[in-house]
Amino acid sequence: MRTALVIGTGLVGTSAALALAGRGVTVHLVDHDAGQARTAAALGAGTDEPLEGRADLAIVAVPPAHVAAALAEAMRRGAARAYLDVASVKSGPRRELEAMGCDLAPYIGTHPMAGKERSGPLAATADLFEGRPWVLTPTRDTDTEALNLALELVALCRAVPVVMDAEAHDRAVAMVSHTPQLISSMVAARLEEADETVVRLCGQGIRDVTRIAASDPRMWLEILSANPGPVADVLTGVADDLDETVRALRALQSADEEKRRSGVTGIEDVLKRGNAGRARVPGKHGAAPASYEIVAVLISDQPGELARIFADAGRAGVNIEDVRIEHATGQQAGLVQLMVEPSAAPGLAASLKEHGWSLRQ
Amino acid sequence: MRTALVIGTGLVGTSAALALAGRGVTVHLVDHDAGQARTAAALGAGTDEPLEGRADLAIVAVPPAHVAAALAEAMRRGAARAYLDVASVKSGPRRELEAMGCDLAPYIGTHPMAGKERSGPLAATADLFEGRPWVLTPTRDTDTEALNLALELVALCRAVPVVMDAEAHDRAVAMVSHTPQLISSMVAARLEEADETVVRLCGQGIRDVTRIAASDPRMWLEILSANPGPVADVLTGVADDLDETVRALRALQSADEEKRRSGVTGIEDVLKRGNAGRARVPGKHGAAPASYEIVAVLISDQPGELARIFADAGRAGVNIEDVRIEHATGQQAGLVQLMVEPSAAPGLAASLKEHGWSLRQ
Repeated sequence: MRTALVIGTGLVGTSAALALAGRGVTVHLVDHDAGQARTAAALGAGTDEPLEGRADLAIVAVPPAHVAAALAEAMRRGAARAYLDVASVKSGPRRELEAMGCDLAPYIGTHPMAGKERSGPLAATADLFEGRPWVLTPTRDTDTEALNLALELVALCRAVPVVMDAEAHDRAVAMVSHTPQLISSMVAARLEEADETVVRLCGQGIRDVTRIAASDPRMWLEILSANPGPVADVLTGVADDLDETVRALRALQSADEEKRRSGVTGIEDVLKRGNAGRARVPGKHGAAPASYEIVAVLISDQPGELARIFADAGRAGVNIEDVRIEHATGQQAGLVQLMVEPSAAPGLAASLKEHGWSLRQ
Repeated sequence: MRTALVIGTGLVGTSAALALAGRGVTVHLVDHDAGQARTAAALGAGTDEPLEGRADLAIVAVPPAHVAAALAEAMRRGAARAYLDVASVKSGPRRELEAMGCDLAPYIGTHPMAGKERSGPLAATADLFEGRPWVLTPTRDTDTEALNLALELVALCRAVPVVMDAEAHDRAVAMVSHTPQLISSMVAARLEEADETVVRLCGQGIRDVTRIAASDPRMWLEILSANPGPVADVLTGVADDLDETVRALRALQSADEEKRRSGVTGIEDVLKRGNAGRARVPGKHGAAPASYEIVAVLISDQPGELARIFADAGRAGVNIEDVRIEHATGQQAGLVQLMVEPSAAPGLAASLKEHGWSLRQ
């Protein structure tokens, strides 16, 4: 790939452009807001001068609702040898292009699984996609050239290509991203009208479950609007589990012994299936997070406390895989949970104790 | 308080005993398994010699199903001036005691909001309750002496007393603890049968939402069995939201413009209520977690990388409020998110850059 045309210079478009430009590709930047394209160019993402002739690859990175139109327009102009989009939902754009009578051979739908809280070219970084899955959705009609240019883009962005069917992708993100978002919002919504005393009892569990409920509703409305069917299907599955669980809980209140037993079975079932599903969630390097051991250290709330812990851990030659900091209510002390490979835990614990840290067993 | 009788020397009983013994209270330890009481005594939690005369306070820390019987038995013997239990659900034990014809004046139901993954006396620590809410549920019949002894226990354990009605407590934990647990299990359960490709697309959002789905089903079955009514009530509220949301998503697929608009309103509503509820979840020192700013730093996966970051942050005089480490799929690099007070973020970012760190904007 020698030349690329990036249409839409927001976070994703500009980040891809930065990665390509940094690896020697000539990138032309276009945005319906010329100022955005100029900003991206000023950041080193390429040039906002018009493209002469044809690019190797056109990357359409506009909001989901405008993807098909932008692709169709670029194709009409013959702007590139191959075309792709990066929208977070994949069946819609393809259907719309088909309805517009476009030739789908030089097109491939893609979705880089990366993002951040901020948007726009100023939030872009060349490493945004590093190590992240980048879904490609070729069909039997897709030109090999288009697939290869997409694979080259993914490689230049140092992402990990994952080939999927468009519908399978949309069902997958409904399950691993869109449904958790809505469910997190629903759990958090319980607290909207709760008494302050109730809210005071919140612990780390609900804190984790509701973290993403703080996300931007406008962005999520756009995403969910582009994938309503698959999300509704997954939510219906959750609703069935929920109804079963309410029934099981009511059965536990029954005077009838057999009913109570069926209640126990129902609750056990959902908890155990939860265990099984959770065990499949990849942690670092694809390993199950359950495989780490936790070394918990008490700290005061002074600058430098964490630095000292990590320095002492480093001296022990131990690699910290993950960290949680839990703060106590109404006081300055806290608990740092260091997650390490089980084999490293005893050494780390011993070394920290030696350096005067108080550990929780 | 000069003498305490701890009945049940598991994690909670032994931890309370350790705190009391450490502050000069004479603690007598009893367990139906004499070996457990001996272990607790060996850890410095008190003595497993039988109590002569009356203790000031009897602390019943046995599994929920045995709380009322253990309390009634201790009361019958006149083992103490006041009695309390520490079970995670509060209406049940009181009702059972009443049904047994016990005098409820010297009794107060309590619930320390602390725990850990491991159980048993060996997991106990004197600081288990430090800074944690400890719910007390006195009624108008509760002796002032019983309330004051309970308050003294909470103070000696350095917990934060929160007075609530027993039913209100059970509804509160249904909302902030029991419901999030079940919902987390249900979201995780979706992944049980999912294709490996789907599972590979999991990101930090679903990872957080499903973290507690890894919890022990046996323990949760016991907790949920003791509080089925309030949990079913909260779940029913979630089920209503869920049905509304599925309806809204289906409306988004409609050809009818007005229906689609109602779908948008429905989705927006649940996302915004989620924002509002999440904003109430207390973070450190009761502050909303949304008030922190994130400084994101790229790291390699070498021992010592985190130590260097924290040392550099410490040199900048910045207090790190929380940390998340996000690992990239299939490679060794990772991203450390440092959460700090907004006013501290620019200084931290500048200082880290100066020390050669790559930041994500």
